[in-house]
Amino acid sequence: MSDKHLNLLMFSGDYDKALAALIIANGARDMGTSVTMFFAFWGLLLLRDPTKMSLEDKTAWEKMFSTMAPRGPEQLPLSKMNFSGIGKNMLLEMMDNNKAPSLSDFLRGARKKGVKFCACKLSLEIMGFKTEELIPEVEVMDVHKYLADAMQANMQLFI
Amino acid sequence: MSDKHLNLLMFSGDYDKALAALIIANGARDMGTSVTMFFAFWGLLLLRDPTKMSLEDKTAWEKMFSTMAPRGPEQLPLSKMNFSGIGKNMLLEMMDNNKAPSLSDFLRGARKKGVKFCACKLSLEIMGFKTEELIPEVEVMDVHKYLADAMQANMQLFI
Amino acid sequence: MSDKHLNLLMFSGDYDKALAALIIANGARDMGTSVTMFFAFWGLLLLRDPTKMSLEDKTAWEKMFSTMAPRGPEQLPLSKMNFSGIGKNMLLEMMDNNKAPSLSDFLRGARKKGVKFCACKLSLEIMGFKTEELIPEVEVMDVHKYLADAMQANMQLFI
Repeated sequence: MSDKHLNLLMFSGDYDKALAALIIANGARDMGTSVTMFFAFWGLLLLRDPTKMSLEDKTAWEKMFSTMAPRGPEQLPLSKMNFSGIGKNMLLEMMDNNKAPSLSDFLRGARKKGVKFCACKLSLEIMGFKTEELIPEVEVMDVHKYLADAMQANMQLFI
Repeated sequence: MSDKHLNLLMFSGDYDKALAALIIANGARDMGTSVTMFFAFWGLLLLRDPTKMSLEDKTAWEKMFSTMAPRGPEQLPLSKMNFSGIGKNMLLEMMDNNKAPSLSDFLRGARKKGVKFCACKLSLEIMGFKTEELIPEVEVMDVHKYLADAMQANMQLFI
Repeated sequence: MSDKHLNLLMFSGDYDKALAALIIANGARDMGTSVTMFFAFWGLLLLRDPTKMSLEDKTAWEKMFSTMAPRGPEQLPLSKMNFSGIGKNMLLEMMDNNKAPSLSDFLRGARKKGVKFCACKLSLEIMGFKTEELIPEVEVMDVHKYLADAMQANMQLFI
């Protein structure tokens, strides 16, 4: 499927949903499919480089948000914080017991395999993140560029 | 992309997800793409006209639900009520600081630009809403009509 | 639309989202469209046969998870546990008042109508479920087989 294209809109900032998205993205690249991941709203938190937070040129709200919001993949919460009593630690233990790679591993895999990483311009502005605070290969784009990519894809998901 | 069609299923009644959906819908209309938004379950709450609630011809449950559920766009909650401590007020402040339009603005934009608004017949019946309580341009349709529209679209999202 | 194909990725384990997915799946089959539902993560809980739980060959975590997680469709929670004060009982009452079928009815309908049920191999391994604990017609597949099916579908949703 090397002539196919997949577009994923990563809206959620949940550990489990990000895991699903990155497993799909890695799988598609393995099959030769080109993949664009567009990160908007909470999804942006996945792209934060945990070592590069800056509080310069930020409003009070943006500083508060930068400080409180999860920094990078491993800090993301579950979509169901207490889903049937299962916490994130329980999921991580079960993944570890099965030698399943972590979210960071899948993110690293996607970056190596050439998944195209895009960040939503409007979301970046609202949340006050600078591109220097994100992983380096991120391209900033607006909704029109997202739509131009997604509309010509063979498959689009909102995650 | 004026020969393209986009279909969005708006299931969620969350402020942030509705914002994402309407930004995409507005963006697609700007590019000449036709857009159908099908509102089901909690998504219906976005279509309520805050000034037109009626309790006539409703069962006790439907009256209770009508009274308790959010009325219209600005009353919708966040998908993560306390996501990393950020509340809806914090998001609204950050949007306001960046002069980003509100959810109501994007909804107004979508109505002006000719997005087709559809409401799920079954959801309306279960929740006991009358079409008179919704914004006027809404067309009621069942799942088969939704699928007929979505299946021939170039892109479909479940939000 | 008998030459069309629909692919649904059921990630969520929420009662209301599962209801939406199965209404769409049933509707598509009514129209002659072929349907694949791929259950991953929490979505797997929908496929549990409530009468067939086994604790053999499971790690301590897997046993705990098996015991605590919802068994089968009717035990699933709402996506918004307390959405505007509405609980699952309230939704069920409103559905019952309108003689709407339950989630189990829609699941039974989808099985009868020939929806293809697939379970994510990796999710099964992590959660420690055996295929014997699921409804019998489930086919286990990995992400590559999921993508091969989804990529050639006319419509894909992540629910």
